[in-house]
Amino acid sequence: MLTERPLITLLTDFGTTDYFVAALKGVILSINAHVHIVDITHEIPSHDIEAGAFTLLASHRAFPRNTIHVAVVDPGVGSARRPVLVVAGQQFFIGPDNGIFSYIFEAESEYQIFELKKEQYFRHPVSATFHGRDIFAPVAAFLSNGVRPADFGKEINDEVRLSPLKARPLKNGNLEGRIIHVDRFGNCITNITRDLLIKRDESRARLRVNGTTIRSFREFFSDEARPTRKLFGLWGSAGFLEIAVNSHSAAEMLGVRRGEPVILEIK
Amino acid sequence: MLTERPLITLLTDFGTTDYFVAALKGVILSINAHVHIVDITHEIPSHDIEAGAFTLLASHRAFPRNTIHVAVVDPGVGSARRPVLVVAGQQFFIGPDNGIFSYIFEAESEYQIFELKKEQYFRHPVSATFHGRDIFAPVAAFLSNGVRPADFGKEINDEVRLSPLKARPLKNGNLEGRIIHVDRFGNCITNITRDLLIKRDESRARLRVNGTTIRSFREFFSDEARPTRKLFGLWGSAGFLEIAVNSHSAAEMLGVRRGEPVILEIK
Amino acid sequence: MLTERPLITLLTDFGTTDYFVAALKGVILSINAHVHIVDITHEIPSHDIEAGAFTLLASHRAFPRNTIHVAVVDPGVGSARRPVLVVAGQQFFIGPDNGIFSYIFEAESEYQIFELKKEQYFRHPVSATFHGRDIFAPVAAFLSNGVRPADFGKEINDEVRLSPLKARPLKNGNLEGRIIHVDRFGNCITNITRDLLIKRDESRARLRVNGTTIRSFREFFSDEARPTRKLFGLWGSAGFLEIAVNSHSAAEMLGVRRGEPVILEIK
Repeated sequence: MLTERPLITLLTDFGTTDYFVAALKGVILSINAHVHIVDITHEIPSHDIEAGAFTLLASHRAFPRNTIHVAVVDPGVGSARRPVLVVAGQQFFIGPDNGIFSYIFEAESEYQIFELKKEQYFRHPVSATFHGRDIFAPVAAFLSNGVRPADFGKEINDEVRLSPLKARPLKNGNLEGRIIHVDRFGNCITNITRDLLIKRDESRARLRVNGTTIRSFREFFSDEARPTRKLFGLWGSAGFLEIAVNSHSAAEMLGVRRGEPVILEIK
Repeated sequence: MLTERPLITLLTDFGTTDYFVAALKGVILSINAHVHIVDITHEIPSHDIEAGAFTLLASHRAFPRNTIHVAVVDPGVGSARRPVLVVAGQQFFIGPDNGIFSYIFEAESEYQIFELKKEQYFRHPVSATFHGRDIFAPVAAFLSNGVRPADFGKEINDEVRLSPLKARPLKNGNLEGRIIHVDRFGNCITNITRDLLIKRDESRARLRVNGTTIRSFREFFSDEARPTRKLFGLWGSAGFLEIAVNSHSAAEMLGVRRGEPVILEIK
Repeated sequence: MLTERPLITLLTDFGTTDYFVAALKGVILSINAHVHIVDITHEIPSHDIEAGAFTLLASHRAFPRNTIHVAVVDPGVGSARRPVLVVAGQQFFIGPDNGIFSYIFEAESEYQIFELKKEQYFRHPVSATFHGRDIFAPVAAFLSNGVRPADFGKEINDEVRLSPLKARPLKNGNLEGRIIHVDRFGNCITNITRDLLIKRDESRARLRVNGTTIRSFREFFSDEARPTRKLFGLWGSAGFLEIAVNSHSAAEMLGVRRGEPVILEIK
């Protein structure tokens, strides 16, 4: 076994009302009864690979070395898209080769990708519509039992990638980004990271989004004696610039959703 | 103990916003701290025994031998309906005798049912409204600790049953079925299984549902170069004929919900 | 370690669509891989401290001795509110000092509160907006590893409290209470407990709520041959007087929500 108590996380768009998630867990525990399974979320919007990729990026670093992450947002299940195992940042990632691991590739300097080919590690018969249960879950369980990554199939290097997550510096020195996630509280997470601001004066920055200009930047949510409904920027817990407002939804106030462009102006 | 690391699953209509599910887990772990608890789902529609029975059927086979399934969809809690323990397919099922185990009885050739009578295995005082916490959870935990099924009460054989799940062959050779589940993606799972088609030519079948005729049968969801909004049938991961459409809700397109009749015509 | 297999529960308003809950679990398992984590709920309404306090009260007693409960409903995260560890009823409670543990203080005769000050038990850098991940989760994990409560910081006794949960006896002998929770089934849980009725004749009681008078008190939900849509009172599984109706939502029928006043008249 990889570790004394192997850890497998699950991230899917299966929801929690059907039997899908339970089927994955049953298959995993049938192969390795000692594994610890943690749900990251099953509420990724149906078929939304980008949302899955972001949530995996934001959560994986909290987990220990050797954690095995199974990520199944898989609109192309049953078609030619390849099932893969990724080794990156001393962790493992298993799922379809459809871009869901893009931001992990972007965040980690080194990684290896193996195509899952060896059918002895699959559950049979392999359903054409449920590779989560029949390929990804059993491969994760066998990996937790000590099977080596290269045993599952050959290394590949022509993986599918989403467009880059990182915000883009413009010629005039501003940053062009976008909202990459709206969380449960209505906070808007942008793809602007602090390292892009090196040598710039944050206190003179202005954030423009959907016709609104935000000039206030704070350290935390309740940074006022009397909370007002004023939008502000803050460096969020996932490492990105967020747009927030006290006890209300910034997304609703701004009238925006994921994908909305954001410009950070630095005079 | 039954196994080195006993496994208890939970399937309820409790939702996840209240303290109900946590109370079950606390009771189980108070009796056997080594048990592994897996949620199947807590989002069965309130009091919908048929939905609970289907989800239990669809998920139980992914779990290993000796798994203990606790299923609590229990509109009659506190009344005369009996609490039972079922032994079937080398697994255990604990819950009310109200039909929730019907499809397990239908799927497994042999089974035994014990009425839960021995109050020393209950949590006291037994609330009249929460047998999940006070009867089913502790019985599951004691079973995982090695108490034998017959120790909980006498065997019975007049169990409550729902109407049969299986589709019905008509005199003209067609199959009359119904939609038994609509999943999160809007796929409509029917009660038609492939064994009913033995010796028939699947390629000449037609599926009629709510005024729509479906002639296309596929192997998986994305079986087209360019996905269209065309309904098709496919043999789903739970072993039943499903009606689906690429990246959209088949249930919405058909205007149907669970219970809708389906006719499979085979010329 | 506290016990052979330490148990940590999580109660938050984080929802299950974001990466927040997974981050807590990853941090805990990075520090103690042997801990068993149980979700109480993550669906507390955003920033609703009172709802969190009630759910914690209703669920904690089902858990065994030495259970560590992490409760994060924390609108003031990052501000001056103190992070605390509470020892009460042979269990542990970790979260913000904002009233979320009020009903535990009310229910347990003795308790101790320690302010979390020792930064060596925090995750660094401590985000200003996510103390769940950076303070509460690691402190819970270190506690499960055997660090003693007093090692995390000094004892305090000026804790923040919500208004008392208990119903109030009026001069005329009646009880004035309120609805403290509406559960998934629409049952209305009041803050009236049976001990307040000592020496009173329950059979002559009347419950008044939002213009409706309820005269029927029952032992369980389905206490009728033919269920009717008649409201009734019953002593619920959490120990409080509940208002219910068979197979429908009492809250909807009464047109009430949490906070609605309730008068119990006893002639």
